[in-house]
Amino acid sequence: MGNNTFGKIFTITTWGESHGPCIGVVVDGAPAGLDVSEDDINIALKKRAPGKTPFTSARVEPDEAQIMSGVFDGKTTGASISIIIQNKDADSSKYESLKDKLRPGHADFTYMKKYKNVDYRGGGRASARETAARVAASVIANKILQKHSIEVHAYLQQVGDIAIDYPYEKYQQATDDAIFCPDHEISLKMQKKIIATKEDGDSIGGVVAFYCKNLPIGLGEPIYQKLEAQLAAAMLCIPASKGFEIGQGFKAAQLHGSEHNDNFIMDDKGISFASNNSGGILGGITTGEPIYGKVAFKPASSIMRTQETVTKDGKQETITLPKGSRHDPCVAIRAVPVVEAMCCIVLADALLQAKSNIL
Amino acid sequence: MGNNTFGKIFTITTWGESHGPCIGVVVDGAPAGLDVSEDDINIALKKRAPGKTPFTSARVEPDEAQIMSGVFDGKTTGASISIIIQNKDADSSKYESLKDKLRPGHADFTYMKKYKNVDYRGGGRASARETAARVAASVIANKILQKHSIEVHAYLQQVGDIAIDYPYEKYQQATDDAIFCPDHEISLKMQKKIIATKEDGDSIGGVVAFYCKNLPIGLGEPIYQKLEAQLAAAMLCIPASKGFEIGQGFKAAQLHGSEHNDNFIMDDKGISFASNNSGGILGGITTGEPIYGKVAFKPASSIMRTQETVTKDGKQETITLPKGSRHDPCVAIRAVPVVEAMCCIVLADALLQAKSNIL
Amino acid sequence: MGNNTFGKIFTITTWGESHGPCIGVVVDGAPAGLDVSEDDINIALKKRAPGKTPFTSARVEPDEAQIMSGVFDGKTTGASISIIIQNKDADSSKYESLKDKLRPGHADFTYMKKYKNVDYRGGGRASARETAARVAASVIANKILQKHSIEVHAYLQQVGDIAIDYPYEKYQQATDDAIFCPDHEISLKMQKKIIATKEDGDSIGGVVAFYCKNLPIGLGEPIYQKLEAQLAAAMLCIPASKGFEIGQGFKAAQLHGSEHNDNFIMDDKGISFASNNSGGILGGITTGEPIYGKVAFKPASSIMRTQETVTKDGKQETITLPKGSRHDPCVAIRAVPVVEAMCCIVLADALLQAKSNIL
Amino acid sequence: MGNNTFGKIFTITTWGESHGPCIGVVVDGAPAGLDVSEDDINIALKKRAPGKTPFTSARVEPDEAQIMSGVFDGKTTGASISIIIQNKDADSSKYESLKDKLRPGHADFTYMKKYKNVDYRGGGRASARETAARVAASVIANKILQKHSIEVHAYLQQVGDIAIDYPYEKYQQATDDAIFCPDHEISLKMQKKIIATKEDGDSIGGVVAFYCKNLPIGLGEPIYQKLEAQLAAAMLCIPASKGFEIGQGFKAAQLHGSEHNDNFIMDDKGISFASNNSGGILGGITTGEPIYGKVAFKPASSIMRTQETVTKDGKQETITLPKGSRHDPCVAIRAVPVVEAMCCIVLADALLQAKSNIL
Repeated sequence: MGNNTFGKIFTITTWGESHGPCIGVVVDGAPAGLDVSEDDINIALKKRAPGKTPFTSARVEPDEAQIMSGVFDGKTTGASISIIIQNKDADSSKYESLKDKLRPGHADFTYMKKYKNVDYRGGGRASARETAARVAASVIANKILQKHSIEVHAYLQQVGDIAIDYPYEKYQQATDDAIFCPDHEISLKMQKKIIATKEDGDSIGGVVAFYCKNLPIGLGEPIYQKLEAQLAAAMLCIPASKGFEIGQGFKAAQLHGSEHNDNFIMDDKGISFASNNSGGILGGITTGEPIYGKVAFKPASSIMRTQETVTKDGKQETITLPKGSRHDPCVAIRAVPVVEAMCCIVLADALLQAKSNIL
Repeated sequence: MGNNTFGKIFTITTWGESHGPCIGVVVDGAPAGLDVSEDDINIALKKRAPGKTPFTSARVEPDEAQIMSGVFDGKTTGASISIIIQNKDADSSKYESLKDKLRPGHADFTYMKKYKNVDYRGGGRASARETAARVAASVIANKILQKHSIEVHAYLQQVGDIAIDYPYEKYQQATDDAIFCPDHEISLKMQKKIIATKEDGDSIGGVVAFYCKNLPIGLGEPIYQKLEAQLAAAMLCIPASKGFEIGQGFKAAQLHGSEHNDNFIMDDKGISFASNNSGGILGGITTGEPIYGKVAFKPASSIMRTQETVTKDGKQETITLPKGSRHDPCVAIRAVPVVEAMCCIVLADALLQAKSNIL
Repeated sequence: MGNNTFGKIFTITTWGESHGPCIGVVVDGAPAGLDVSEDDINIALKKRAPGKTPFTSARVEPDEAQIMSGVFDGKTTGASISIIIQNKDADSSKYESLKDKLRPGHADFTYMKKYKNVDYRGGGRASARETAARVAASVIANKILQKHSIEVHAYLQQVGDIAIDYPYEKYQQATDDAIFCPDHEISLKMQKKIIATKEDGDSIGGVVAFYCKNLPIGLGEPIYQKLEAQLAAAMLCIPASKGFEIGQGFKAAQLHGSEHNDNFIMDDKGISFASNNSGGILGGITTGEPIYGKVAFKPASSIMRTQETVTKDGKQETITLPKGSRHDPCVAIRAVPVVEAMCCIVLADALLQAKSNIL
Repeated sequence: MGNNTFGKIFTITTWGESHGPCIGVVVDGAPAGLDVSEDDINIALKKRAPGKTPFTSARVEPDEAQIMSGVFDGKTTGASISIIIQNKDADSSKYESLKDKLRPGHADFTYMKKYKNVDYRGGGRASARETAARVAASVIANKILQKHSIEVHAYLQQVGDIAIDYPYEKYQQATDDAIFCPDHEISLKMQKKIIATKEDGDSIGGVVAFYCKNLPIGLGEPIYQKLEAQLAAAMLCIPASKGFEIGQGFKAAQLHGSEHNDNFIMDDKGISFASNNSGGILGGITTGEPIYGKVAFKPASSIMRTQETVTKDGKQETITLPKGSRHDPCVAIRAVPVVEAMCCIVLADALLQAKSNIL
């Protein structure tokens, strides 16, 4: 499996650079018969797109997906689905002055060393632009989940040191918030912080939480394809992510077993759980309770302040992004739909895999 | 690839139940010519084995590895390496009384639902016993790393709310500590807490940190085989793990870009980093700086207190582990060598994969 | 790994239907630094394209590849390479009259049953059109092979009962033959047969042979990734292929060991072989001798004669292709560059994999 | 996926050398609830075992399988199944005199070059002994197939130039034939030929055919996991195999489309086929008709005649196997159960994969 492919049965293979002509994804393993339209994908892309508020980059990405294969008469055929998104607002000129310098926090240095070349135009393959392809692919994944009534939601849970409860029960409220935070009061505080950070020429980190419900019992395959392990891999391959938790996560490290264990109770639906500290997974397999977790994002590496760096050929210099550069003061905001997308992709794959457990 | 296989080039396939006759691992993809002996493996197994101190389970696991294939005249041949470890001290009798009840926090419920059967004898395949096979396999991985002078260390960083600095520079001191904590003073506090927890019939969570150094630049493959994603998957498939961080992890969410970015500096070795907040990875690829991260472990699910539960056929009952049951009050302790093992396995795989990048 | 992906380190993922807007391939795992241009790919596509002689379909495929990613300043970057080819001469109108009938020998029936839908426009995904994407991808593979001076050739070895020697030493002469047969005299007989078959409204089978030289010793990985097994899988997933041989193949079944064994001899280059009945592979690993083998192709399923069939909803009928339908009287001709392409892809993958065997 | 692993959902990972203490296999992906006993496996192993007739090697392999994991109370649990077979009659002494010489036709040379070591004791990992592990694994695969009433049979179809009809309708008669040939009259001729060959100190090639029936429509995944491609890969990784055919195979190359196409007819069961030249597969997917095909085996490389060879350090010499060496005059005989085993493994994997096509 190539390094640009993710998944086992339901797989996505992405390609494209931030400043190339277009980016895209090949979705494989989707069952035939799913209703899919370009509109479905465009709606999802719009959610991810920057440029709508002062809280994200000014880059306008009026993304329009083209489905090139795998869908006939509005339905998936079972063949590989190719989706292409043009790079309409890529402006490479801003990067000319940075051409010879290593941008701190970016992948310039490691790509240069590993591949002996750097696509200086906005990070090339390492750009967050790549995640648009994942969001497009997740629309297909989500169609599979919807057939089983599974819901996947993500929301902004923390910006700097401002945080909301976790897990947050009214996660749906994230949809109509400017920065996907379901607690609108705290959202305003976060927004203030982000604006202040931006005015300061700086960026700030954040945490995205996810919440999935209506899951069947039995998704996830022990030992090395535990569902939480698949989710962790999915999240840690989102650019700028630095941490992952499932259920109580790091807080579990501070608890006693008598506090953390989810006891069993009988209710009218049968065996049930008195609590859900595990985050809906035991032994790598879904319990039927909601899955919830968190992903930590570092502050965006691109900041408007002058930083110490070196040139590619090894001279000490400073680097200052050109005025008018378009960057996200808080990448966690735009990561919300990407976390949601990766959840959908992991769950769809797990769902299709679980079918092969049955005789 | 089966669910009991991990890795792409350097792979491990494990098998065996806690209370079966033996457990084992097939290691594949190891280059020929590595010096490997059963003694090498036994030394590593000893580190993982419980029963040596009051801080871990009383189960004595005098593990002795047998190498069944792939090694000839003391050297790996390039063939698959089969390692078998007998289950010498498995005592299933203690589980008889629990046979019909679901143990809270364990995988009994999800295995029962997914597979329509439960191996009630100590958790079967879901038991932490399985990790002995990973430790055995990691010895081969470590041989590969040693050829490149790469070092991998893990240590206990937190128990309950008692924690040491992170990353902890004197990690080597973990080796001669009873609970693998490199700060012996704080270790004593942790030990006290663990003993008190145990006497209370309870268990407690903890955090294990890892630290790898002397890494070449260029390990890890973008986009979906980023090194941190591989590490996250590796760690989240250790039983009881609930969270993963690389570099500053969740703390990064609270920082500004101007604080978190690692600036470049020229020194006598060439391009270098002024700091290492990234944890030695940029864009999914090693920077050459040390890799460090953390793994959160929940408190052990097995506790000596009476808990609410249901029987497999759905009757509300309580469950009390029989007197003399052997359980870990803090699974994070025994997870230390397992975290180390999974690091070795991920890095060896990445190292072999990186060779294929070169023309 | 999805079903539309082939390979382990060097992988191709193809997409696109015969009568959709375009087809394409994502090539992953190619090392950075290879010189690749769209012209390189177009030259290879031209070789495969039909419509140039009376011996192939009249469909004109003036294929022009667009490289959408993974190549910057004329060189591969190490990122996934997306190549797109427009479907310029797809004419779906001819298929309208066939819409409701199952075409004998085609995949209509099995696709309909498996996926509950049929793309009646020229076979959709099952069309040989898909192989253009493989040919495009093989150009990248071939660039890797060329760095190691490895040469790959394929030629038409048999049409109906007319055959040339196997292996044929002067395989290079295939390049300038109208049907890729290196023996021009026999080629003329084959051409006559093909024309007669075509005039008869019928099609005919054929055999394509391949020959690879300058191979390093050591490519191929036992036990389940033996090089001949990878080649066999590659060939049997070419549409219309029905058989595969390596070395003496089925003829070996008639030989004695004393005839078939390739004895070792010392010559000035070191250990060498007195013969090469094995076809350049022993134990799944290249011997350094040329690899040669054969692939059998059935007669094209599309013929101009009236055939017995049923409609999709189960009525017995006859099927007659509309006048002017464009089909290959002998698909083996156009399979020659595809066999060559699959050889290149398998060898490039094996070459990159073999690098990970070394410490 | 390691090189010693085969399959995608239902996978086998084998290990062990011909003259090591034991060999084994880890079977992964088998659904829970299958009845499996060691006796089931031993019966299958007995069929493969040599030493019963003068037509195979005198090596006595009283193979007894031990199931080490994955089966509890006589049923598969869903966990990885480890099966171990002791090497009871390995006699390495015979190989001492050959220690320094390359055996023509064997993998000594390529293993030596690739891995810089040779296990001279009977071929080590490259020995046909490894196939016993596949036969053991196939018992689990067959249990899955039996749940769907699928039958898999293989038989000896050709020895040297003596052949029976293909496909042979009365394949069941192979079971009670000394060399697995269903036509007992021709079997006697084959046996005579084999004995004569053996007395002559030589070996002879052969062809094994397979026949599978009661298949559901829809197994196999286009484009690169076509069922025939999976079968081809499976067969070409059996030691000594040199060719593979599905359906009419190479004979199809001589036919016209009007002869080869299988027309559709309506009968009382619905849509059916007037013939089955395709061998039960169209577009890579099962048609529901029987699958049949052939595998060519070269003559065994070990012969009792003196052959030209070189020593490992490059001196021209002759090689003569020591008197009393135990070798197969016709490896195709013992390949019959192995071909059957690989068919079962491929079909079980395809069956489990096909489940994920359904929403």
